[in-house]
Amino acid sequence: MKKTARGFLFIVSGPSGVGKGTIRQELLGRYGDLDYSVSATTRKPRPGEVHGKDYFFVSQEEFQELLRNDALLEWAKVYDHFYGTPEQYVESLLTAGKDCILEIDVQGALQVKRKKPESILIFIAPPSKEELIRRITYRGTESRDEIEKRMQKVEGETQHLHEYNYRVVNEDLEKAVESIRAIIIAERCRVNQSK
Amino acid sequence: MKKTARGFLFIVSGPSGVGKGTIRQELLGRYGDLDYSVSATTRKPRPGEVHGKDYFFVSQEEFQELLRNDALLEWAKVYDHFYGTPEQYVESLLTAGKDCILEIDVQGALQVKRKKPESILIFIAPPSKEELIRRITYRGTESRDEIEKRMQKVEGETQHLHEYNYRVVNEDLEKAVESIRAIIIAERCRVNQSK
Repeated sequence: MKKTARGFLFIVSGPSGVGKGTIRQELLGRYGDLDYSVSATTRKPRPGEVHGKDYFFVSQEEFQELLRNDALLEWAKVYDHFYGTPEQYVESLLTAGKDCILEIDVQGALQVKRKKPESILIFIAPPSKEELIRRITYRGTESRDEIEKRMQKVEGETQHLHEYNYRVVNEDLEKAVESIRAIIIAERCRVNQSK
Repeated sequence: MKKTARGFLFIVSGPSGVGKGTIRQELLGRYGDLDYSVSATTRKPRPGEVHGKDYFFVSQEEFQELLRNDALLEWAKVYDHFYGTPEQYVESLLTAGKDCILEIDVQGALQVKRKKPESILIFIAPPSKEELIRRITYRGTESRDEIEKRMQKVEGETQHLHEYNYRVVNEDLEKAVESIRAIIIAERCRVNQSK
């Protein structure tokens, strides 16, 4: 019996507001050969969100249990809620030979890379600082102070760019999605170089 | 003034008969952002071939002069004719920020990699040994002995696969061209990793 080649783990990551969620949705909607790593969270489902598809919605106790069992590839507390990536779920996809997309923030991506150094990190960058401010402001949910804090965070995050494999500028959604698709195809062709 | 980023050198290479010439033509025909590294040769032009476009057609003396001046990135003698890649031509394209495609055999690709380690080597592989024999035989220009010799050469060449960055199977021309296009786009997004 032929052994199934292990799948690739692609991490789509970048500053908040850069559009990585939209990019992930487009990729999964268009290409049937990609799976999505569903995260666990303690926050309540928003209208339309489906358990096991958008998130695994879990209780505080269940999340603490995952933490205690070191069952998360990465996790973070954002405001009052916990978010994390169950390792077993990702691992089952990769073992079955499926390529998997993880969409997480920069800190999370670096955590995953430490646990799975073979994962491929893609940094989604805004076309400019000004454009990122515009996008965050457009949401209308953030105060001026909050935006200032976010921008400082972005500068800190960008300093980790050298730990990423690829950088894709999200100026035009279509081009960004195409670039990531190209990265996925290219990585599948990559020769495992011994040097 | 903004400094132009240096272009990438993509080397499309692989065994004789694998279809790398067709792939190169398709890439250059479809994508205006790629340039072709024109080779020098001592063989006579075939009908339709244009000097400076298909090849630089040079005399034996001119070729020896290029060799003496170490002006070739790689060269080979095939039957009675010399073939080589003038370094200055490629260098002028790369310096101007243009991405450049070189289509050469395996020995040539390895020579270029020694001189320009930053070049990206793409190995075009036949779907199977049987299919490669079929393609070579189909040309109708080779004797049985010649085919046997070629197949041995292919096996030797395949042992250099680990020196390549990518491997693309040319089972379906369309898919092969798309994969190489993906590799080119991906490499442009690649982060220069310090580790």
